[in-house]
Amino acid sequence: MSRYAVIGSNSFTGACFIEYLLNLPATEKILAFSRSLEKTELFLPYLSHPAAHKVTFIQADLNHDLGRVMGVLRDVQPEYLATFAAQSEVGPSWENPQHWYQTNVVSMHALYFGLKDLGFLKGIIHTSSPEVYGTCEGYIKEDAPMNPSTPYAASKAGGDLALLPLIKNFNLPVRLIRATNIYGKHQQLFKIIPRAAIYILQGKTIELHGGGLAVKSYIHSHDVSHGTYLAMTRGRAGEIYHLSPADGGISVREVVEVICRSLGADFNKVTKVGPERLGQDKAYTIDSTKARSQLGWTDDISRETGITEVVGWVKGNLESILEQPLNYVHKE
Amino acid sequence: MSRYAVIGSNSFTGACFIEYLLNLPATEKILAFSRSLEKTELFLPYLSHPAAHKVTFIQADLNHDLGRVMGVLRDVQPEYLATFAAQSEVGPSWENPQHWYQTNVVSMHALYFGLKDLGFLKGIIHTSSPEVYGTCEGYIKEDAPMNPSTPYAASKAGGDLALLPLIKNFNLPVRLIRATNIYGKHQQLFKIIPRAAIYILQGKTIELHGGGLAVKSYIHSHDVSHGTYLAMTRGRAGEIYHLSPADGGISVREVVEVICRSLGADFNKVTKVGPERLGQDKAYTIDSTKARSQLGWTDDISRETGITEVVGWVKGNLESILEQPLNYVHKE
Repeated sequence: MSRYAVIGSNSFTGACFIEYLLNLPATEKILAFSRSLEKTELFLPYLSHPAAHKVTFIQADLNHDLGRVMGVLRDVQPEYLATFAAQSEVGPSWENPQHWYQTNVVSMHALYFGLKDLGFLKGIIHTSSPEVYGTCEGYIKEDAPMNPSTPYAASKAGGDLALLPLIKNFNLPVRLIRATNIYGKHQQLFKIIPRAAIYILQGKTIELHGGGLAVKSYIHSHDVSHGTYLAMTRGRAGEIYHLSPADGGISVREVVEVICRSLGADFNKVTKVGPERLGQDKAYTIDSTKARSQLGWTDDISRETGITEVVGWVKGNLESILEQPLNYVHKE
Repeated sequence: MSRYAVIGSNSFTGACFIEYLLNLPATEKILAFSRSLEKTELFLPYLSHPAAHKVTFIQADLNHDLGRVMGVLRDVQPEYLATFAAQSEVGPSWENPQHWYQTNVVSMHALYFGLKDLGFLKGIIHTSSPEVYGTCEGYIKEDAPMNPSTPYAASKAGGDLALLPLIKNFNLPVRLIRATNIYGKHQQLFKIIPRAAIYILQGKTIELHGGGLAVKSYIHSHDVSHGTYLAMTRGRAGEIYHLSPADGGISVREVVEVICRSLGADFNKVTKVGPERLGQDKAYTIDSTKARSQLGWTDDISRETGITEVVGWVKGNLESILEQPLNYVHKE
């Protein structure tokens, strides 16, 4: 039986990972930390899971409540811990960049600086991002140089580098995951897949930044949870693992085309071209050979299947979805 | 005639750079910013310079007074700006790492985020460090990957990466300087060259961390000021320039041997071996071919000459030196 801690449990990827852990029979307990109140079932699939009682939610903000987080960890002594907490949006990082550096570098480092002293931790996951590489056309491997194009990307890169002194000098058992763009049911509504589906169902026009030509490696949240678990339990300290589809990336435009087909909408009627985002990289296509060969990871959900599933989730929950804000709401 | 701003004017390298600028006839005005009160003449050679009236000192802390710094810059409109401000010590960065990340990443980024909107700036220098590479045996070039071993090094690496989105998206005219270890008259007394001289003159024993085997590229402050000026006025935006001696590094032990010879002391009697520092890299020997070929930079002061000069400065100012604290005093 194993105990887990998930930092950033209200995040899309964190919540999906908790659901993944609940499906493992040997899960004894999960500590779920978030700075916000627990979200609704719409975003937290684990709430309606038969084993939901194994999850203990703790509201705590890494920027302010680190001592309390550390206290709970020392009490419960989880063997494994995964962090998904971050200022995670790209565009808004140009508005208040100091919040991105504060959370993703200063506060994340403070967490890991505390974790280095917790001898009961066997495996730690740090959620990084392929955006640290800047534009990555072709197949980028884990040792590519950092070359961030936005405050979000640079703050994630800085947070990753802050781990190295702790790995080198204290053997902090942390592995880094870089996956993009993670999608699936329960994801934030302002992300392209649910947003496009909502707009089509409402008869609104979808604006595609720069025509939606940016290429991204869309990967389903279940596949990411599986890879995260493998890296956490089998991976090696200090190693970075990419999680991405074997067949490369597709453009945002192509994703919207799949959604249009799924909803019987005419792409040319429901979309228009908008201005490109500041610092938008042309492509994030990363090579996941290492995770496949060293962790035995595979991605199992095809994009057509996965995107159609998200569209179905939007259709089936449209009433409660429309009660939610559809745009990103920044919180310091 | 040119106006300059120096951020971190109380730092050893910043103060030497101001003296360098005062020696240029075309210098009209220098804004000197530091979070602390102006230090004494012992550390600020520019105070006794015949052109000292060209320097305006402003006490302002980047962590708290950025608005005021920006206001002064907008008023005076300097063409060139160089930042030396940082939490700059390596060993103490393990004690309060959050102060290092706060200043060197969050506050430095906030400064540059403001500078990107000042169209009157023609050239900006950001002082980085070769420690961002981690250990660098052999001759490391400017495109080597970042691999920091201490919180100091990781915080400088994070600060460097935070510049990239501003360079890519706003053409911020910033050049990065990496030089180590900068030495010379007026430097901090706890640094190895003045400290060794002071200890010998006082009959105290010098403890060499790890036997002083770490190899470093000692470079004189005048040579660094010259290279900084060339990079600021002739360098290209986004470029990194190494400043280091052409003949590679020497060990801390060899440096102390030069000091012993200069003072007629017996190395074996005045030194003892102490424990190695946490995260001490074996070597920092960097290749400065790029600065030599692209900027026309040369280093003019030999180590023997330079070290002997520092020893002479210590001897000649021993009384006022001994009134100062000899150890590093941390300030958040």
